[in-house]
Amino acid sequence: MSDALVAMQRADELAAFSSSATGIDRQYLTPEHAAVNALAARWMTEAGMATWQDAAGNQYGRLEGATPGLPALLLGSHLDSVPGAGRYDGIIGVLIAIAVVGRLSPGELPFAVEVVAFGDEEGTRFGRTLLGSAALAGSWDDSWGSLADHDGITLAEAATAFGLDPSLIGTARRSPGDLVGYLEAHIEQGPILENEDRALAVVTSIAGARRLLLTLTGEARHCATPWALRHDALVGASEAIIAIERIAKQRNSPATVGHISVLPDAVNVIPGVTEFSLDLRDATDAARDDTLAVILDEIRSIAAARGLGLDVHETHAAPATHCAPALREVIAAGIRSTGDADPRELFSVAGHDAMAVAAVTDVAMLFIRCKGGISHSADESVLVDDVALAIDAMHGAVLAMAG
Amino acid sequence: MSDALVAMQRADELAAFSSSATGIDRQYLTPEHAAVNALAARWMTEAGMATWQDAAGNQYGRLEGATPGLPALLLGSHLDSVPGAGRYDGIIGVLIAIAVVGRLSPGELPFAVEVVAFGDEEGTRFGRTLLGSAALAGSWDDSWGSLADHDGITLAEAATAFGLDPSLIGTARRSPGDLVGYLEAHIEQGPILENEDRALAVVTSIAGARRLLLTLTGEARHCATPWALRHDALVGASEAIIAIERIAKQRNSPATVGHISVLPDAVNVIPGVTEFSLDLRDATDAARDDTLAVILDEIRSIAAARGLGLDVHETHAAPATHCAPALREVIAAGIRSTGDADPRELFSVAGHDAMAVAAVTDVAMLFIRCKGGISHSADESVLVDDVALAIDAMHGAVLAMAG
Repeated sequence: MSDALVAMQRADELAAFSSSATGIDRQYLTPEHAAVNALAARWMTEAGMATWQDAAGNQYGRLEGATPGLPALLLGSHLDSVPGAGRYDGIIGVLIAIAVVGRLSPGELPFAVEVVAFGDEEGTRFGRTLLGSAALAGSWDDSWGSLADHDGITLAEAATAFGLDPSLIGTARRSPGDLVGYLEAHIEQGPILENEDRALAVVTSIAGARRLLLTLTGEARHCATPWALRHDALVGASEAIIAIERIAKQRNSPATVGHISVLPDAVNVIPGVTEFSLDLRDATDAARDDTLAVILDEIRSIAAARGLGLDVHETHAAPATHCAPALREVIAAGIRSTGDADPRELFSVAGHDAMAVAAVTDVAMLFIRCKGGISHSADESVLVDDVALAIDAMHGAVLAMAG
Repeated sequence: MSDALVAMQRADELAAFSSSATGIDRQYLTPEHAAVNALAARWMTEAGMATWQDAAGNQYGRLEGATPGLPALLLGSHLDSVPGAGRYDGIIGVLIAIAVVGRLSPGELPFAVEVVAFGDEEGTRFGRTLLGSAALAGSWDDSWGSLADHDGITLAEAATAFGLDPSLIGTARRSPGDLVGYLEAHIEQGPILENEDRALAVVTSIAGARRLLLTLTGEARHCATPWALRHDALVGASEAIIAIERIAKQRNSPATVGHISVLPDAVNVIPGVTEFSLDLRDATDAARDDTLAVILDEIRSIAAARGLGLDVHETHAAPATHCAPALREVIAAGIRSTGDADPRELFSVAGHDAMAVAAVTDVAMLFIRCKGGISHSADESVLVDDVALAIDAMHGAVLAMAG
């Protein structure tokens, strides 16, 4: 059986570990997390690696290089999922990494190769993403131990139940000198490769999102109020949402209003307050920030024209992560080794573990075509042939790194 | 002290009976309802009336006409309130009615005069409006006994606790032969009189609302989804809300979207489902229904253009109530008696007890200017001089009725 087919079968096997009977839901520091770590460790061992679980619950495997103890090239992704997830987001990157190591021999390379399977990327359980990779990168904050899940269980309590010492999670940090770089394979979570009939792409950068909560305040009045005297916060927000689409679409910046609510939320009362979110991303922080400035100018005009108050509150801001040119070239060389002479370059709209890992070592990513661009859904789908190409490309990238 | 000043002081006195420490909140079949009935009964007695509470908890007073037992002209409004209410919506109509009877002598008129203070118009507690006036009009439905409030207390249980027999509420019905008509004074709840520097108006009709719940269904997808592949249910709803404003404003039909919600309601997920309400009114049912047809056509086009599913569910529909021409003329005569030679005519966008009472007898209404058109708010305000004019006009109307 080809190593791509093995990877696909392992993705199916991992899908069985879920806290939900009706879909895949695998969160940080749960029994399902422990189970998939154990399975990944077995596959790592079969691929010739020494294995361990770090102080943050990330699962590692290591194949030594020419001499023991050399700095390591890290390959990896995450094994946790959102609720109602598919089988490949994160997971296929870990399985491809194990498959690549399966093709290598101990002592073959001038560096060690490590595979890391992160325990938390999605942030579903404790409301903060990239916990596993933040621990590796030395960005762990001990105050996170008091983050609580929906049942009120704190991260510290969950870590203890998982068999970890919450006060030692920070020791999962790796030192820059121990690493030569980080390569991550991941499904595209977008439809561009499928639309262009391509299997793989080199990632140039990972967009940093800015998230805002916007509040328009008008007057909650009886629905008998004549048009001329209305200050309707929802009609104003509707104009703002249309403007966000128009401006961001023109600039090809992904912008999403995923949350909206009104007060008093009564069928026969004009909304006095409307609150809505904005998530804005782009290939570069400058492009994103410029789009945001244009959007906010437009929303200010809409609010002024309607006599509405406007409050803008930034809830999250992350800079874009730029993939290291040398490692981008290594990924491109890997893709070229599969017969694609001119690899497609894409920026990643979605966030990835590589964003956190970039704090400790250079990073680069390989994107794999997925059906319809669908992700975070049971309909997530990849072709076994594309996985085969991705294993070849990552193997080629590792060899290019050594060359 | 003028009887207008007495009415204003009584409105202040009634405002003290609230279930909330921070605003006026007086609901059906509560201790506050019992308290204001007792107070109204005292004032009715002082005005020379015999008093009783009917089987639905409505408070009555009666002044006999030329001979005992004549059919009665009903004057009244309601004493219940929405949460966070003002001091005049409903209440001032009851107090004006009592003031008018205070100016009459027993046996003076060729009909009896009764004042009714309805226990429920707003429908806040049990989610169904006009319960008090429906009982009077013979429209009571015994199944309403099982309607429950937010604490799970049924109307039947609340009626029993109030001292009523829930199985006998339907006996509060009045027979058409016992009544000669119903006249109600009420604050305008709109700003037209204030804008035109007028104190009073004759109501021509009470708009019947149609209420719909509209659901747009697209695809909940990761915010990385490119623009061309999005089916965003919230951007579609925003276009619909803008279209509702544009169309209804052009036709001067009051239209309100007071409720909106999205699924999955996550900052980084494109809304897959958006649900919003529409409350639409007009002077005539035909005008309202025509506007609705144009709005729905436009929303269907918006949904089709965006590849969204549309579900339209009507949650409420009431026909307009037309005030009886003879009684409109009586109100107009009353206004003319205050010195306004050409009374303004208005249709009522808001619903009133008169809508329910119209099932058993002819109705007409007098509107009183209120500050800024503000109602259902602690900022509700009327001028004592306008209340004085309203008492004069209602007194004049009663005399015109007798003439």
